[in-house]
Amino acid sequence: MVGLGPGNRESITPEALGAIKEAQVVVGYPTYLDLIEDLMAGKERVATPMRGELERARQAVALAVAGKKVAVVSSGDPGIYGMAGLILEVAGGEIPVQVVPGVTAASAAAAALGAPLMNDFAVISLSDLLTPWEIMIRRLEAAAQGDFVIVLYNPRSHGRPDHIKRAREIFLRHRSSQTPVGIVRCARRGLEEKILTDLENMLHYEIDMLTTVVIGNSQTRVMGGEMVTPRGYRL
Amino acid sequence: MVGLGPGNRESITPEALGAIKEAQVVVGYPTYLDLIEDLMAGKERVATPMRGELERARQAVALAVAGKKVAVVSSGDPGIYGMAGLILEVAGGEIPVQVVPGVTAASAAAAALGAPLMNDFAVISLSDLLTPWEIMIRRLEAAAQGDFVIVLYNPRSHGRPDHIKRAREIFLRHRSSQTPVGIVRCARRGLEEKILTDLENMLHYEIDMLTTVVIGNSQTRVMGGEMVTPRGYRL
Ligand SMILES: C[S@@+](CC[C@H](N)C(=O)[O-])C[C@H]1O[C@@H](n2cnc3c(N)ncnc32)[C@H](O)[C@@H]1O
Ligand SMILES: C[S@@+](CC[C@H](N)C(=O)[O-])C[C@H]1O[C@@H](n2cnc3c(N)ncnc32)[C@H](O)[C@@H]1O
Repeated sequence: MVGLGPGNRESITPEALGAIKEAQVVVGYPTYLDLIEDLMAGKERVATPMRGELERARQAVALAVAGKKVAVVSSGDPGIYGMAGLILEVAGGEIPVQVVPGVTAASAAAAALGAPLMNDFAVISLSDLLTPWEIMIRRLEAAAQGDFVIVLYNPRSHGRPDHIKRAREIFLRHRSSQTPVGIVRCARRGLEEKILTDLENMLHYEIDMLTTVVIGNSQTRVMGGEMVTPRGYRL
Repeated sequence: MVGLGPGNRESITPEALGAIKEAQVVVGYPTYLDLIEDLMAGKERVATPMRGELERARQAVALAVAGKKVAVVSSGDPGIYGMAGLILEVAGGEIPVQVVPGVTAASAAAAALGAPLMNDFAVISLSDLLTPWEIMIRRLEAAAQGDFVIVLYNPRSHGRPDHIKRAREIFLRHRSSQTPVGIVRCARRGLEEKILTDLENMLHYEIDMLTTVVIGNSQTRVMGGEMVTPRGYRL
């Protein structure tokens, strides 16, 4: 399980590159395989479509059981909404699995915005393909109540365009409408876009599945165009 | 602001190395400067002791205001309990500041343990030098109540040996005593140590300031020696 980081080649650690070089088979989405094209000579390539993660995990594990060294590549960190868990569940202890961590989208989005994650934060995925909506609501409530900075992954897709609206309503019950909100698209990918707005106005901007959204806590400020959550608490 | 990742040279991204190469002055703790010793030829070096972060930030900003290209290096991600926020606060928009993200300790600890962060998680620092204890308690309660996986940074130091005990008591009010707990020391540093235990027994192991602690949610399981939180929710 190899994390490629959020962006281009510049965000892949030497450890991750080393693991790919050692592999005989590389499994991943076509766009990620393109990123490491120059390392693919002589390797078997298993490019898989966006869905079908379970099938992909089974295929990777079957290849490993058959004796191949397999690298399954994920964007960001494979252990954060990536493939690491599924692979470990499918492997069931039968084959050795190593996880090579990567820079996750929360870090990349935060770096683009300034320093919004200097105090405690919660990471929540708004995809409910796998988590029931009631549990997601409970988490959004808890994170808002605990004055966590909140990082939203998978903030919007065709199947669930309303989640981000309902999340915002929950936040507004606990935080000022002027709370800073950062929206970062394609962080570290050359076409990076960032928007600094607030809870009041955040829905006026495009939020899609290539976007990470960061909601400030009660202390978060915008200073000189940067979103900053002070580390020290000011009461 | 440059993140060196959790471990040795293998966890530093090419982007971070590039930023260091470009700098005229490198500011950081001596141990981190040692990690990049081979890049330091011809550069001014400002090694600073563990405390005195504000002074270090002021010094770095003063050098930049004087026209130098300054790299301030942090372990992990500089935007997560690192120096990025303080530098931005001190700089006050007067100089351009860029943040180069790194692999944070949560990702590194999770990779050592298996895949505990496959579902929503909260990151909390148990250092109360900067956050009052009442707010920390409120966060621990909220994270436990929201069934977040919980990642504890700065879990213990001489000044506050009891925080981890009190955090555990809060978790036990919301979660089974059999909830898996992972303790990782010096992740990705060659001397990495990991312990898989549970809420009942976690205090029988050494937890120090080089350690990150991961508390499972209600779904987290240990399978084949790995700590895994399934991505899909099983009710
Ligand atoms: C299935 S998750 C994968 C996360 C990945 N494993 C990680 O650790 O970053 C996909 C979500 O990650 C976020 N994401 C991934 N890469 C991103 C980037 N370069 N810029 C902004 N958001 C990104 C978006 O919220 C996207 O919907
Ligand atoms: C002041 S914080 C700095 C965090 C850093 N900026 C990051 O993103 O990882 C220090 C805490 O990070 C955690 N930590 C940093 N490096 C670690 C490592 N290699 N292994 C385990 N924990 C680590 C520990 O909890 C430690 O007390």
